[in-house]
Amino acid sequence: MLKKVLVGNAYTAIDHHQIKFLPQALIEIDSSGVIDRVLEPTAPDYQAAYQAAQQAHLLEKVPADQVIFPGFVDLHVHAPQWPQAGLALDKPLAAWLNDYTFPLEAKYQDLDFARQVYHELVHELLAQGTTTVLFFGTIHPEANLVLGEESLHQGLRTLIGRVAMDNPDQTPAYYRDSSSQAAIVATETFIHQLNDLGKDNPLSPIPVITPRFVPSCTDATLAGLGRLARKYDLPVQSHVSESNWEHQYAIDRFGIHDAAVLDHFGLLTSRTVLAHATQLTPEDQALLRQRKTAIAHCPISNAYFGNGVLPVNDLLAAKNRVGLGTDISGGYSPSLYDNLRHAVALSQVRNDGISRDDEGIANSRISMVASFYLATVGGAEALNLPVGRIQAGKIADLQVVKDRFKRPTETAQERFERILYQTHRSEIMQVYTQGDQVYQA
Amino acid sequence: MLKKVLVGNAYTAIDHHQIKFLPQALIEIDSSGVIDRVLEPTAPDYQAAYQAAQQAHLLEKVPADQVIFPGFVDLHVHAPQWPQAGLALDKPLAAWLNDYTFPLEAKYQDLDFARQVYHELVHELLAQGTTTVLFFGTIHPEANLVLGEESLHQGLRTLIGRVAMDNPDQTPAYYRDSSSQAAIVATETFIHQLNDLGKDNPLSPIPVITPRFVPSCTDATLAGLGRLARKYDLPVQSHVSESNWEHQYAIDRFGIHDAAVLDHFGLLTSRTVLAHATQLTPEDQALLRQRKTAIAHCPISNAYFGNGVLPVNDLLAAKNRVGLGTDISGGYSPSLYDNLRHAVALSQVRNDGISRDDEGIANSRISMVASFYLATVGGAEALNLPVGRIQAGKIADLQVVKDRFKRPTETAQERFERILYQTHRSEIMQVYTQGDQVYQA
Ligand SMILES: [Zn+2]
Ligand SMILES: [Zn+2]
Repeated sequence: MLKKVLVGNAYTAIDHHQIKFLPQALIEIDSSGVIDRVLEPTAPDYQAAYQAAQQAHLLEKVPADQVIFPGFVDLHVHAPQWPQAGLALDKPLAAWLNDYTFPLEAKYQDLDFARQVYHELVHELLAQGTTTVLFFGTIHPEANLVLGEESLHQGLRTLIGRVAMDNPDQTPAYYRDSSSQAAIVATETFIHQLNDLGKDNPLSPIPVITPRFVPSCTDATLAGLGRLARKYDLPVQSHVSESNWEHQYAIDRFGIHDAAVLDHFGLLTSRTVLAHATQLTPEDQALLRQRKTAIAHCPISNAYFGNGVLPVNDLLAAKNRVGLGTDISGGYSPSLYDNLRHAVALSQVRNDGISRDDEGIANSRISMVASFYLATVGGAEALNLPVGRIQAGKIADLQVVKDRFKRPTETAQERFERILYQTHRSEIMQVYTQGDQVYQA
Repeated sequence: MLKKVLVGNAYTAIDHHQIKFLPQALIEIDSSGVIDRVLEPTAPDYQAAYQAAQQAHLLEKVPADQVIFPGFVDLHVHAPQWPQAGLALDKPLAAWLNDYTFPLEAKYQDLDFARQVYHELVHELLAQGTTTVLFFGTIHPEANLVLGEESLHQGLRTLIGRVAMDNPDQTPAYYRDSSSQAAIVATETFIHQLNDLGKDNPLSPIPVITPRFVPSCTDATLAGLGRLARKYDLPVQSHVSESNWEHQYAIDRFGIHDAAVLDHFGLLTSRTVLAHATQLTPEDQALLRQRKTAIAHCPISNAYFGNGVLPVNDLLAAKNRVGLGTDISGGYSPSLYDNLRHAVALSQVRNDGISRDDEGIANSRISMVASFYLATVGGAEALNLPVGRIQAGKIADLQVVKDRFKRPTETAQERFERILYQTHRSEIMQVYTQGDQVYQA
């Protein structure tokens, strides 16, 4: 049983070197929201399928000046920080946390405030072409449930973590878990509450084990969270070696690297996504590779706080798992388009160096194809979700994007690149999750 | 005699460290399009002026969710390259020129093509909040006149250069001046033709002496263009030390640096704007300073082609003149908002370095205030034009920008920063040049 058939010009990533252009593809979506078939005009069944869809009033034609992409997967969003996106980016990380971020996050005990912010944020993310988001919430289980409700209601696919942070040295008294036990109990309660939300709905939010980062957690909390991840077989998210400071902090406290600390506590799994990772050593990178742990590359945020540009090319070549994240609000933009452009530009700066005396690091450059791969397939694989590709068997999470300009002499590959460079929010016309339209410009 | 009075929340740069917030400012614009007075509510005349404007039906109220900025000044746009913005950015400079750029520019002998592209481009730039543009055209005088006509017609303030390029070693046979004499004659003819266009109109385009860059010109052409600049007292534009290659080219051909070559031929004046400049030595920078020659900082383009990040902070501290440029199409974006954000992010990367082994270059970071200064005052001063500030005596080139979000607890300074981080084309509501509305969303 089909629910919908889209027909139009589509692009999907094959790997980080190649995209597939599907001219006038017929994308058949079944009643469960999964792509049943993708037919090209040369397929023997194309005409028959086209006519059947038309007769059943299931056909949605995407105009020639629009293209279909997979919806984007955002691997790193701090939902509560949305109101401060674009603020305080000139502060050092410690001031940014203590003077802006912690006071703001503490406000989410007010559920009306949470509702208002999360309603706006979920809408904004869909409007930017993002269909799956891995969220950090706050320490407040109820506010995180509000985020789950808003996501479900508006049709955004989400994974949501109740943040654990109980180390009195690194967190303020007004915003911390009162004890390790409190952190673990609140996390476990939240897992059950979120699992009850939208049961049987394929967009039901998935709970995520979320130690804020190593510095903000006591040993007992890190250990307890590792046990919960195993007990419930859940995804894990945190930050890793985001900055010189964070990298050095783990060495000072544990005598080992940040990544090894997370591993020690059972938090490096094939369901783990770690943000930033700019300061990882080759050995740390190998450890993540071995554990199949993914990296959320946050290019805009890393420019401000990362003390370095992630070696994306090396990581992809070594088969580390990498996707993209906006890192609201360490990154100012809710758009993965902005981030995929920054990923390319910053890789070029890494390649060429920052000054006339600096030769850069050869082979650092990534292409726009690679960046698009990160925003779609890379993110999907990091989360082990069957999204991110326009292909039979994948869930129909899609975006339809307008090309504002007519460039009749371009190749399909050139058009792909130009659209990715030129698309902003106002060009995103339609967004679908699980085959249902959830946003329209 | 007043033509119009705007009232609303306005921001204008004082210097590269400070902005002035003008809450509910009354901006009186006289019949010639010049700002007559800017009154704050505390001014004794405010109430009387407000009522007088209202009674004369001259008052335009900017809603509380919008703010007024000076229009942006774009110091570097290759008008003919607009159709390829966002293409071929993964090519080395030479391939980018020979395989993409030169074949495209050659097409502008077709005036219908020129009309179509330039109509779209001028509209796009206004829609992005840009009110003054320094354009490179092509070698075709007629196509450049079309650009002038479109600018005048749509109300964009422009300076337009007919590109000179006659060095057979560095330009293709199908797109070059046939001789130095031909280059000089065509340039001089174009000066007269452009001066005749829109005479007495304050937006009449200004002709600009435009050697493409040192490599593409013979000595005789560089010398002849220097003479024309002096004879007609005209602005000059070119590129300088954009890349390792260009910097080294001048050394190989002349035994001196690129900037010194331009100086030798009389092309470094207080009316000169040079794009990129990433490879300048401190001595080169001092030479530009001495000549009062300005730099067009093109942060996006420099990431791709510049082999380094411009030391903006050092240049501003040393009192070099610096403004911003999009460098279409070495830069993919027609938006100075995109560029001012990249200017900040890339300055941070210069500050912090590209990898964990790289400590960066201290004090390289520029603030969003500095970036805004470059896009307004910096550009205006580079062109010696009385625009770029909301202040009595300056021309009323303005943009009105919508803030999509309500953030009631922010300071005015925070709001300024956030709006600059979040504004895209769709938030630009109105644009004025010479006090007349020339764009409305
Ligand atoms: Zn984060
Ligand atoms: Zn240029």
